[in-house]
Amino acid sequence: MRTIEWDDDRDCIVMVDQTKLPAEYTTYHAETVADLIESIQLLRVRGAPALGAAGAYGVALAARRNDADAFDAFVEAVRADADAIATARPTAVNLSSEVETVLAELDACSSIPEARERTLARAEEIADADVARNKRLGEHGADLLADGDTVMTHCNAGALATVDWGTALGVIYSAQEAGKDVRVIANETRPLNQGARITTTELLEHGVETTLIPDSASGLCMQEGRVDAVVVGADRIVLDGGEAFGDQGVVFNKIGTYNHAVIADRHDVPFVVAAPHATIDTERSADEVEIEQRDPDELREIYGVQNAPEDTDVYNPAFDATPMELVDYLVTETGVYEPPLDRVAFEMADEPATV
Amino acid sequence: MRTIEWDDDRDCIVMVDQTKLPAEYTTYHAETVADLIESIQLLRVRGAPALGAAGAYGVALAARRNDADAFDAFVEAVRADADAIATARPTAVNLSSEVETVLAELDACSSIPEARERTLARAEEIADADVARNKRLGEHGADLLADGDTVMTHCNAGALATVDWGTALGVIYSAQEAGKDVRVIANETRPLNQGARITTTELLEHGVETTLIPDSASGLCMQEGRVDAVVVGADRIVLDGGEAFGDQGVVFNKIGTYNHAVIADRHDVPFVVAAPHATIDTERSADEVEIEQRDPDELREIYGVQNAPEDTDVYNPAFDATPMELVDYLVTETGVYEPPLDRVAFEMADEPATV
Repeated sequence: MRTIEWDDDRDCIVMVDQTKLPAEYTTYHAETVADLIESIQLLRVRGAPALGAAGAYGVALAARRNDADAFDAFVEAVRADADAIATARPTAVNLSSEVETVLAELDACSSIPEARERTLARAEEIADADVARNKRLGEHGADLLADGDTVMTHCNAGALATVDWGTALGVIYSAQEAGKDVRVIANETRPLNQGARITTTELLEHGVETTLIPDSASGLCMQEGRVDAVVVGADRIVLDGGEAFGDQGVVFNKIGTYNHAVIADRHDVPFVVAAPHATIDTERSADEVEIEQRDPDELREIYGVQNAPEDTDVYNPAFDATPMELVDYLVTETGVYEPPLDRVAFEMADEPATV
Repeated sequence: MRTIEWDDDRDCIVMVDQTKLPAEYTTYHAETVADLIESIQLLRVRGAPALGAAGAYGVALAARRNDADAFDAFVEAVRADADAIATARPTAVNLSSEVETVLAELDACSSIPEARERTLARAEEIADADVARNKRLGEHGADLLADGDTVMTHCNAGALATVDWGTALGVIYSAQEAGKDVRVIANETRPLNQGARITTTELLEHGVETTLIPDSASGLCMQEGRVDAVVVGADRIVLDGGEAFGDQGVVFNKIGTYNHAVIADRHDVPFVVAAPHATIDTERSADEVEIEQRDPDELREIYGVQNAPEDTDVYNPAFDATPMELVDYLVTETGVYEPPLDRVAFEMADEPATV
């Protein structure tokens, strides 16, 4: 199955429950909008492109669950639900943008049954487009890798972060499909351990030789010459760096990405960001991007066991900001770009990217 | 009590059991040499200076437990035990050097009772000297900090890594004693979480305002201007960088230290290594230092809960290597040094350093 899809039998969303990995590979059915929002917040579904699909299906779910009689009241209620879904996590651009895309269908509808049908059809298109896009992205990125290369990756920008195939890991799978033997060093990715739990699980299932390391060992690995390239995904890319970064763009991705980018720069290891155009936010500057702060208990406890004194103050940002000067290649579904990036190219590409 | 000391009543070594922190502050009695070796390997006692005391008391324990009748057989057996203690963990120089120091007492002895008495007396001197030395080190280091500074630290180079007072955290305590308000950002320090479990516990007990972060957030913290200095300890410092590092010295310290040093360099945050002279190995080059590889299960499981697929390959080095060009200040019990370091100064200082 895909990471997230529509369950026709139960008329709701079904997803791989990623909070249960690696011990169990199980699914979770989001029957209500509240179930979906909880799933997004607990990271049952995570990764920017998968969150885009979650947002899209979420609007369809809202339309199917709403029991208003009048069309106007129905639209108002669906919009309110859609707003709650779009803001369930603040940093991922895909979540809110795909909610908007599906919501726009309502404008062309005049009845509740029509709205229910069109929102689900649009969500299905978005999910299918994600898979097709990731395969194109993977093929472009695979050209950067040579047979025998070892790639370091952080967090999970894999099939399980998308509807299928993945972005950063899609590059690996496409290289493998092209007959290249590529190995992976997977960073654990504290505090939620997506690298340990999800990336290693996924890569082993795809038959990719994988070594798990603590995030802290990325420097030693690069110093020892074990890494030929770092390939990561992105949650949001802005082209305007704002006050802190100026003219250059900024990649917002899982906390720790910036650390590895700085170290890769020191060791002349190519640093590659693999992300669809939909991740590129041409409107906001870096100053306008809010970095999500997560629950301090994610550090005070691990898997329910006490890891620090209960009253310890914690700083637990979900993302960090990597300036484009540290990025050697940006790989999207339309090709490989070398920063500095041409703003116009991405503004023009907006339309095909969101289809 | 001290982190590790001699229990006169039970005639054995007693230590704070650091594997139980932060949930429980309990002690463990090492009644036999095997108990002590296990304690070193399980990290009940850890930190270079505390391991030095463990090695010193270990020789005394070996002398007291050995039941040979003849002095020659006794000496041979104690030396064999001492050798096993000295190699219980490969990277920490203090462990083997303090074992050697106490073993040397045997040469001046002619009876088993005399050997038992002199080895214990020498071990007590070593432990007392550690505390006095750390206080001198802390006072020198405190001069580098200003009132209101925030210090990032990695792992635990605190009172619990030494017999008392600590090295990196000793600098904090001495600054506090001098009336400076200094705050700490403590890195979690995967995979054994010494920062979360031990450093935060210790700092909160000392009334130091402390914020715990995942190791991956060090870059964002420095980028956001939250860090005025990084202060870490060292497990071993060599002055000859060998093939990889050339003329410059190298600091071997907890895995992740190198990451933070590279990032601090990018952000012009002073990077300070606080370590006694005994940590400085003037004989070996970096090529001759073996980096300890630890159990893969430290990453495959956390606190007994599965964290990755059971068959995942793991790279789990305990230490990394930070070249001296990234170190702004080396603080020892004799003062503050700015690299490049004068080899002769440390060779000359060898004697007072090991007393």
